[in-house]
Amino acid sequence: MKTVKIGLLGLGNIGTGTYKTLEMNRDEIESSLGVKLEIVKILERDTERDRGITVPMEKFTSDPDSIFTDPDIDIVIELLGGIEPATSFMLKAMENGKHVVTANKAAIAANYQALMDTAAANGVLLRFEASVGGGIPILTSLTGPLKANKFEEVMGILNGTTNYILTMMTQEGLDYETALRDAQAQGFAEADPTADVEGIDAANKLSILMALMFDKYVAPGDIPTIGITKVTKDEIEKARQDNCRIKLIAHAKKLDNGDVEYAVKPMYIDENHPLAGINREFNAVFVKGNAVDELMFYGKGAGPLPTGSAVMGDVMDIVRTALK
Amino acid sequence: MKTVKIGLLGLGNIGTGTYKTLEMNRDEIESSLGVKLEIVKILERDTERDRGITVPMEKFTSDPDSIFTDPDIDIVIELLGGIEPATSFMLKAMENGKHVVTANKAAIAANYQALMDTAAANGVLLRFEASVGGGIPILTSLTGPLKANKFEEVMGILNGTTNYILTMMTQEGLDYETALRDAQAQGFAEADPTADVEGIDAANKLSILMALMFDKYVAPGDIPTIGITKVTKDEIEKARQDNCRIKLIAHAKKLDNGDVEYAVKPMYIDENHPLAGINREFNAVFVKGNAVDELMFYGKGAGPLPTGSAVMGDVMDIVRTALK
Repeated sequence: MKTVKIGLLGLGNIGTGTYKTLEMNRDEIESSLGVKLEIVKILERDTERDRGITVPMEKFTSDPDSIFTDPDIDIVIELLGGIEPATSFMLKAMENGKHVVTANKAAIAANYQALMDTAAANGVLLRFEASVGGGIPILTSLTGPLKANKFEEVMGILNGTTNYILTMMTQEGLDYETALRDAQAQGFAEADPTADVEGIDAANKLSILMALMFDKYVAPGDIPTIGITKVTKDEIEKARQDNCRIKLIAHAKKLDNGDVEYAVKPMYIDENHPLAGINREFNAVFVKGNAVDELMFYGKGAGPLPTGSAVMGDVMDIVRTALK
Repeated sequence: MKTVKIGLLGLGNIGTGTYKTLEMNRDEIESSLGVKLEIVKILERDTERDRGITVPMEKFTSDPDSIFTDPDIDIVIELLGGIEPATSFMLKAMENGKHVVTANKAAIAANYQALMDTAAANGVLLRFEASVGGGIPILTSLTGPLKANKFEEVMGILNGTTNYILTMMTQEGLDYETALRDAQAQGFAEADPTADVEGIDAANKLSILMALMFDKYVAPGDIPTIGITKVTKDEIEKARQDNCRIKLIAHAKKLDNGDVEYAVKPMYIDENHPLAGINREFNAVFVKGNAVDELMFYGKGAGPLPTGSAVMGDVMDIVRTALK
């Protein structure tokens, strides 16, 4: 069997989850593809950390160019996070003829057109299923089996941290600060929760969804964005009296005149709407298409293994499409 | 632009929905693919019925062989329903080098291996996304972006008729017979509802899901199947007192010893489970994978346009994979 060689940028939580996903399902993945997969180089300075996996020391490198210029490497997986140097690394990998898989919503949303153009110009594939909704296969569904639709609307609960906090405020009657501390204690919020609670993470994901659904790129910074830091217990209770739940919704809708309106903000969701029942750290994406009508996708929007599932799904797609 | 030519078997409700989906989204579909699509022949005796679409009379034929032997036809869409002659027609189309798309769960479930083998032997593609969950892109997700998982369990509400009846019994306190008549009046149940209410339709779909998720084919007739005709108001009320809902669930689970247990039957579903909130004619599929963990897909499991969305999604996939 042919071996497809992979360079991995970053062995943090998501990198480790991707590595584990490949190791634990390697037999099924390789027999399904009819090729072997090997992660041959890993860009990572921390070679000592106990990750619960065994990585041969010789795979580690601190030189990114040694990955981009390695003629044996077919696919680069970018899991560094952040806009830079991740974007530059992805561009360089593609310019060197490597296919790229990433989970990086910030980089994709910030540099969508440059990344897509570079992939096209170099005849390589760029896949980023994990960047929106973690393990939920929403992007592949929109661009594949749902592509015969004109899309009309998307409403997403795309950030697990804020959904966990709003769930605790609703179900346990906590105020915002207490719910945030609870989320931090449970590992659902970072020490600096700004990107989550201010809606920045959700805006990145909405930017990507709009580009794919409406062929309309809007920079995340140009999406009107309100986070959840000002949501009060009183507002949660008022919503409940109106038979609604407050959810942080990434929303975009095609108007009759062809324009798209879009925003990230806390919204009242009727308790009978499928999004109303999405609680704790779960994500969900509700979409409407002119043929398929209403659909909702629900699952884990973060975490090492769910994200690893989506990353490895993209790797398999690239092998099937371009490397067999 | 190249033109991909399609032969359509059947212009009933689903055939008409497929035709409409192509007509209303033709510009976007063709510009996405970079090819034109033309339905050149339609096997249908009833040329007079008002379907709300304009079909040139010369496209109609009553001779199926004129489609299978037409060297210009690339793809055959089978929307006749029922096991025969649909299965024989699909086999003949593939033996003549045509790719095949179908929404026919009964034929796929009854003759899974023969159909798959014939596709492989003739180097053509066989796609059947619409056969399970209508417009919900569950099969493409399982075989594509989720393929890096070992699947552990599936629980599906896969039949809109029975879910509508159980919803009316639960929410309106109707007994089974009254709810069935209501479903028939609303167009959610057929005059002869046997295949739906006895669980046969759900068993067909479970057979297809198991083949794809567990690589294990079980004939629908070999799946233990209990329908909803014996569910009483008292049982619905008893479930509610236990904080549960009764749903007709198509269930399969991988056991620790590698075996798969499977059944279609009414089950108690905890009111906090995501399937508990799936009401009326909607379908949903809950799956667990060893990397992605819990996922749920929700949407319209039937209807001309949602089914047409899935059929045309398959057609687009075939064009992208094999006809460009």
